[in-house]
Amino acid sequence: MNTSKDLFRKCYDFTLADDVKAQGVYPFFHPIDETEGPVVSFGGRKLIMAGSNNYLGLTSDERVKQASINAIKKYGTSCSGSRYMTGTVNLHIELEEKLADFFEKERCLLFSTGYQTGQGVIPTLVQRGEYVVSDRDNHASLVAATIMAVGQSAKLVRYHHNNMDDLERVLNTIPGDAGKLIVSDGVFSVSGEIVDLPRLVELAKKYNARILIDDAHGVGVIGRDGRGTPSEFGLVDEVDMVMGTFSKTFGSLGGYVAGERAVINYIKHNASSLIFSASPTPASVAAVLASLEIMKAEPELMERLISNTDYVRQGLKNAGFRLMPSRTAIVSVIIGDQMKTLTFWKKLFDAGVYVNAFIRPGVMPGMEALRTSFMATHEKEHLDKVITEFCTIGKELQII
Amino acid sequence: MNTSKDLFRKCYDFTLADDVKAQGVYPFFHPIDETEGPVVSFGGRKLIMAGSNNYLGLTSDERVKQASINAIKKYGTSCSGSRYMTGTVNLHIELEEKLADFFEKERCLLFSTGYQTGQGVIPTLVQRGEYVVSDRDNHASLVAATIMAVGQSAKLVRYHHNNMDDLERVLNTIPGDAGKLIVSDGVFSVSGEIVDLPRLVELAKKYNARILIDDAHGVGVIGRDGRGTPSEFGLVDEVDMVMGTFSKTFGSLGGYVAGERAVINYIKHNASSLIFSASPTPASVAAVLASLEIMKAEPELMERLISNTDYVRQGLKNAGFRLMPSRTAIVSVIIGDQMKTLTFWKKLFDAGVYVNAFIRPGVMPGMEALRTSFMATHEKEHLDKVITEFCTIGKELQII
Repeated sequence: MNTSKDLFRKCYDFTLADDVKAQGVYPFFHPIDETEGPVVSFGGRKLIMAGSNNYLGLTSDERVKQASINAIKKYGTSCSGSRYMTGTVNLHIELEEKLADFFEKERCLLFSTGYQTGQGVIPTLVQRGEYVVSDRDNHASLVAATIMAVGQSAKLVRYHHNNMDDLERVLNTIPGDAGKLIVSDGVFSVSGEIVDLPRLVELAKKYNARILIDDAHGVGVIGRDGRGTPSEFGLVDEVDMVMGTFSKTFGSLGGYVAGERAVINYIKHNASSLIFSASPTPASVAAVLASLEIMKAEPELMERLISNTDYVRQGLKNAGFRLMPSRTAIVSVIIGDQMKTLTFWKKLFDAGVYVNAFIRPGVMPGMEALRTSFMATHEKEHLDKVITEFCTIGKELQII
Repeated sequence: MNTSKDLFRKCYDFTLADDVKAQGVYPFFHPIDETEGPVVSFGGRKLIMAGSNNYLGLTSDERVKQASINAIKKYGTSCSGSRYMTGTVNLHIELEEKLADFFEKERCLLFSTGYQTGQGVIPTLVQRGEYVVSDRDNHASLVAATIMAVGQSAKLVRYHHNNMDDLERVLNTIPGDAGKLIVSDGVFSVSGEIVDLPRLVELAKKYNARILIDDAHGVGVIGRDGRGTPSEFGLVDEVDMVMGTFSKTFGSLGGYVAGERAVINYIKHNASSLIFSASPTPASVAAVLASLEIMKAEPELMERLISNTDYVRQGLKNAGFRLMPSRTAIVSVIIGDQMKTLTFWKKLFDAGVYVNAFIRPGVMPGMEALRTSFMATHEKEHLDKVITEFCTIGKELQII
């Protein structure tokens, strides 16, 4: 085979991962052998997990685990089909009804992953000649969903991150009679920043656009009893559709979108990523149902999550670290250099603290960061150790 | 709001689902209350399940269920993160190694759904100026993945279903120095037909193209010990990449791609649907591991699956039904009219047999069909009832 014409040439030329491994600072795909929520074990060594999205610590809650186990006993390990065909069990319907109620929308629809949810909504609703209006820092799953819409001849315009003046500027470039969907994260995943929803809603009304908010990092974290970003701003009715994931607060896997009946009904009968994908497993659906009940019954979990995160945020700020703006459960520490970020990550790992390294292409050059996130179930000693190790290594690497 | 400019207008205008419901023949999203594999209960009434992809009946196998339960006890209900970041546990690595070994490839990579797997491979590998060469009847998940590649400026050419002369024709239209990926189902999902792999491989060699086979309906059904389509033809080494799903034979949820080290390594560090999606749950991964062991140890399950399907296929053929060509675990009965298909579906449902109705846009007009699929765990009495009810209703509706 003439390799210059070979589709796989790019794979043979890709050395970044091997190079970083050779330098001993590779931060990805490390397998966990055991987990107790805030403490996990890698290769037999215990680390404080300060990079998980298990916000309320529910993945290891005995009630959630037992609900999941009971579902396996009753329904087996898979539905072996899509919701559309043979893959719907009672639990799916029950969860859709409870979530619609929780998010105060007429209907809710489940997807097998949060990642697939955006592509069940965006390319299904935004068709030829219509516009996706997207924040430049939206989550990768929304980007993928938008690319799919573009691949089907929808139009895309993007605005500067959370910049409502720029949103108005781009809305002005779109024909007034074209259908438009403004898409934004509620809480942005890299920084933990909250969308400027009041102004976004105002502009949507003015320019006749519909709104989709992806609240993956907002639900269980902000809003009344964890109802997320629209609730936080008292704008539940003004947001046409909310979507989210089960792999964060809800301690499971899957996603959902909630909105008015006709819209959900349309998505239900037209979305490829719903109709042609096997449904969420009974175990995963049961875990969400149990988590939802706990969330509603125990608002103190959310309070503990926020006070834990605030504690670390304040500690790192006081120490002189540069943080991305956030008041949610994410604290991102800007390091600003790829190699320093990877070295810092490795030193934290060796010192017993697990965080996430964000390097290019995940963030812009100069914004390389260590992203930490916290749980309701972290103890004060865990949080103190995170702060202490950050400070020690930060001084060593002359970051602070 | 001026509804003529409204993105949601299409939703308000969509009445098909409500119309079919009003006619009492709506065949979708029916919830199962209980399942024992080949027999399921809808609204308290037991039906024979003749539409599931649970080919070897493993979703209700006690060993598979127990493996899943043990994983929940050890690892909790979710990994709360992507494989890339905090979502890898030992089980993921173990399964990747065992599947690479099973499919006789250097490496294997897991995805959270089968649906997401194609989009982890196709838009990642096929870039600007390169070509996806796709069978017109490929599964919707491959279509979605291809649309995503097109949205990122890759080129798409399609060839007539399983028609190797047409494949050669389209290959001739592509610049010789462009990278190309031929993508095909191994076993086509609507019909159960097997791809003409020997000629496809020959053409790929001649035109310097790489091959991706989606073996969702082939694994556990054909090939040595269920290794699928490439194994069935003795062409394992000639197929560059095989992908598939865990929601069929493997009794779980998720997907995989297997291929050479450099290619899997590239996908692992560049695929959005892997890096930005929460990993398969410990429960789901453990179910696949248990199913894989059972598949390897009990080849008689596959034999029973095929003999069960052959029995029904022969019975329906003898009765005069028009079947799509297949020797796998799918038997599709062509009805050729939308309303007759829905009516037939409803009468089967009322008579205690659950199958899948395929209507537009899933199939071409005139090819509306009732798709049946079978399990190793169906008893002869189940199969006889399926044939009998098909014959009774077929006569009543003057199909036979």
